[in-house]
Amino acid sequence: MVDAVRATGAPVSGAGEIFQILRDGRARTKAELANLTGLARSTVSNRVDALLASGLVRPAGEAVSTGGRPPARVAFNPLAGYVLAADLGATHATVAIADLTGRIVASRTHPLDIAAGPETVLDVVIAEGGALLDAETDARARLAGVGIGVPGPVEHSTGRPTNPPIMPGWDRFDIPRYVQGSFDVPVLVDNDVNILALGEQSVGWPGIADLVFVKVATGIGAGIISGGTLQRGAQGSAGDMGHVQVPYSHDSPRPAGDERDLEAIASGTAIAAELRSQGIAAAGSADVVDLVRSGHPAAIAATRQAGREVGEVLSTVVNMLNPSIIVLGGSVARAGEHLLAGVREVVYRRSIPLATQHLGIVQSQGGETAGVMGAAIMVIQQVLSPASVDARGARA
Amino acid sequence: MVDAVRATGAPVSGAGEIFQILRDGRARTKAELANLTGLARSTVSNRVDALLASGLVRPAGEAVSTGGRPPARVAFNPLAGYVLAADLGATHATVAIADLTGRIVASRTHPLDIAAGPETVLDVVIAEGGALLDAETDARARLAGVGIGVPGPVEHSTGRPTNPPIMPGWDRFDIPRYVQGSFDVPVLVDNDVNILALGEQSVGWPGIADLVFVKVATGIGAGIISGGTLQRGAQGSAGDMGHVQVPYSHDSPRPAGDERDLEAIASGTAIAAELRSQGIAAAGSADVVDLVRSGHPAAIAATRQAGREVGEVLSTVVNMLNPSIIVLGGSVARAGEHLLAGVREVVYRRSIPLATQHLGIVQSQGGETAGVMGAAIMVIQQVLSPASVDARGARA
Repeated sequence: MVDAVRATGAPVSGAGEIFQILRDGRARTKAELANLTGLARSTVSNRVDALLASGLVRPAGEAVSTGGRPPARVAFNPLAGYVLAADLGATHATVAIADLTGRIVASRTHPLDIAAGPETVLDVVIAEGGALLDAETDARARLAGVGIGVPGPVEHSTGRPTNPPIMPGWDRFDIPRYVQGSFDVPVLVDNDVNILALGEQSVGWPGIADLVFVKVATGIGAGIISGGTLQRGAQGSAGDMGHVQVPYSHDSPRPAGDERDLEAIASGTAIAAELRSQGIAAAGSADVVDLVRSGHPAAIAATRQAGREVGEVLSTVVNMLNPSIIVLGGSVARAGEHLLAGVREVVYRRSIPLATQHLGIVQSQGGETAGVMGAAIMVIQQVLSPASVDARGARA
Repeated sequence: MVDAVRATGAPVSGAGEIFQILRDGRARTKAELANLTGLARSTVSNRVDALLASGLVRPAGEAVSTGGRPPARVAFNPLAGYVLAADLGATHATVAIADLTGRIVASRTHPLDIAAGPETVLDVVIAEGGALLDAETDARARLAGVGIGVPGPVEHSTGRPTNPPIMPGWDRFDIPRYVQGSFDVPVLVDNDVNILALGEQSVGWPGIADLVFVKVATGIGAGIISGGTLQRGAQGSAGDMGHVQVPYSHDSPRPAGDERDLEAIASGTAIAAELRSQGIAAAGSADVVDLVRSGHPAAIAATRQAGREVGEVLSTVVNMLNPSIIVLGGSVARAGEHLLAGVREVVYRRSIPLATQHLGIVQSQGGETAGVMGAAIMVIQQVLSPASVDARGARA
C-alpha cells in the first residue's frame, strides 16, 4: 500500500472516512457512500477517484440500474499492500505475510532460540519473510509494514525490548532500525501478549471494543483492549498481571498473610511446583498440561485453583474496566476447561451484576497463527488509519 | 461554534488536522502550518481560509518579515463557541458557561436537591444556563453543546441514568431530549467521577494520557483515562471501584476471611462507622472530615487505614494500566494528607518498579469548578474533534 500510494502520487486527502467504510469489504456505489457519510456527491466522487488511483480501492462491477447507465461499484482492495508479521517465542518463530485485512497469505513456523540474540533471530525473520514475499507477485514492492511480537516487555514507541528476562542480548536493541536495513517500511514491535490480544479480537471478536486477553503458560500476562484501543500505559507496562500481588482470600487454601505475585501461585510453573510438593513428578508447565490432558485429578484440581486465583485479579479488572469479553489463552488454559471454570467461579461471584451480566469468559479461539495475525493487525491499524491515509495522500 | 459554522456554511473538510494544531492557542503563519503538517502550501491555504470563514480561527497579526510582505498569522478563536456545563451533586448544583478551551467564563453554585426529580432540577439548569449565556454578547447563538455530570451511573451513549441510588425519579430519564427542548445542541451526560477525571486532567495534568482519578467521599468511585481517552467500558460501568471486593491482607487489621466492598471499608461512611465502634461521635462523612481537620488521632488513623485499603485496589490498577498519575479527590481526600499517605504506603510497596518509578500519587488540584470544567471538556472533545470539524464542514 505504501508503495502503491508512493508510486501513483495520488492525493487521497480527506478520503480516510470513506476508506474506513469500505474496509468491511462490501462493494458500494458512490451514491451509497454519499448517503452513508452525508458528504456531497462531488466530494465523494473526488475521494473515490483518489482511492482508486492509490490502489487501495478497486472497481467492483456494477449495481442494478434504476434507469439509465448502471452505477459502478468500488470495494476495498486487500491486496493493495502486504504486511510481514513475525511471532517470536522462547524457542520458536512464526513468520507470515498477510493482506491488508489481516488474512494470512502464507506462514512458516520452525524452532528458533530467542537467546541466540537479536541479529541471528532477526536475520532469520528477514530471510524467511523475504522468501514468502518473493513467492507472491509484486508483494515485496507492496510491503506496507512489518509487525513483530517478542516474548518480553517492549517500549512500543521505539520498538526496543526493556530488560526482557528470557531474551539475553536483546535489551534496548533497536529492532525497527535493524529490520529497516532490509525492508524500508514502518516496523512495529510489541510483546507477545498484546499481539495475541489483537489476534484474538480479530479472529473471534471483531467489533468488540473492550476485551481482556489473559495468557497462562510458563508465566502470566494480559493484553487489554479498552475503548477499542490496545492499552499500553505510560511506560508500556500495562497488562503486567503476573506481578499483581494476590492476598489471602476465601477462595485460596493458602494461609492468611501469604501474599505473592499471581505468577508465583497460578502459572504453569507454579502449578508444577504445587504438584511436586504433593509428590507428583512435574518439572514445569509442559508436564502440567500433559497431566491435565490425561485426566490426573490432582493436576486438574491445582489448575482449577490457579483459575480461582486468576479470577481474584480479574474480578477487580471487571469492576474497573467493564470488558465484554475475557479470553483465556496460553498452554495451561488450552489444556481443558479447568482453568476457565476456576476463573468463572470467582469472577461471577465477586463482581457487580451490571459488569457481569453481559460478560463472556471464554477460551482462546486463536490457533497457531493468532500471534502473527495480531502482529499484522497492529501494523494495519496504523498504516490504514484515516490520518495515515489522509496524510500520505496529501503529502504525495 | 456549531452555529458559527452553520451560519457561514464554509466547507472545513480536511481542516481537522490543522485545527488540532492551532488548539494550543499559539498564532502561526500558513508556512509554519505547512512545515508542521507536511501538507502542501496550497492545501494549507484553502483549509485555513475555511477555518477563518467558520469563525473557529481568527486573524492574529503579522509575523516578522524576512523580506517582502510580512506573513499573516492565524490563531484558534476560543470565543467562536460556548459550552453550557452543569455539575449536579446530591444537594447542590454548579452551572457554568465555558469557552472552547474549557475556560470557565461565568458560574453559579447553589443548593439544589437532586431528589426533587429530573424536570425540577433540569429546569433550574436551563434557567441558570440561559441567564449566564444572555449575559455574554452572542453567547446563546454560539452555544456548541451542553455537558452535565450527575451523581450516579449513566448510560453515556443515551445520556440516561441507570438505577442511580441517590437520584429518585431519574432512572432511564432522557436528559438530552429534555434539555434539547430548550437548547438545540448536542447534550452529553456522564457520572460525576468521570467528569471530575476530565476536569483534573485539564486543570493539573494537560497532556497526561494515563490518569486515574479516585473520589473518596460518602462513597468511592474512579474515573479512568487511559491512552488519552476516558474509559467507560462496555456497559458504562468502568471505574466502579467502590464495589471491588477487598480480601484480607497484611495491611488490614480485619480478620482473615473478611471480604467486603471497598466502599464498605474505606469510604467516609465506613470510616464514620469505624469511629462510632470506638465510641467516637461521627454520623457520617462530614463528621470524619471535621475530626480529621481538627487533628483527632483516631480519625486520622482510620483515614490512613482507609487509604491503605484504597491502595490495595490501586496497586492492581497500577500493574494492569500503568498510569502516570493517580489523583485522589473527594471530601475525605481533601481533609488532609492522611488518605494519600495510606495509599502511597501500599502502592509503592506492592507494585512493580517499572510501573511506579514514574508514578505520581497526588491530591486533587481542582477546586469547586473542576466538575463543570470536566463537563465542558467532555463536550469540547466531541464537538472539536477532527472528525466533527471535518464532517460539519463537508456537510455544510
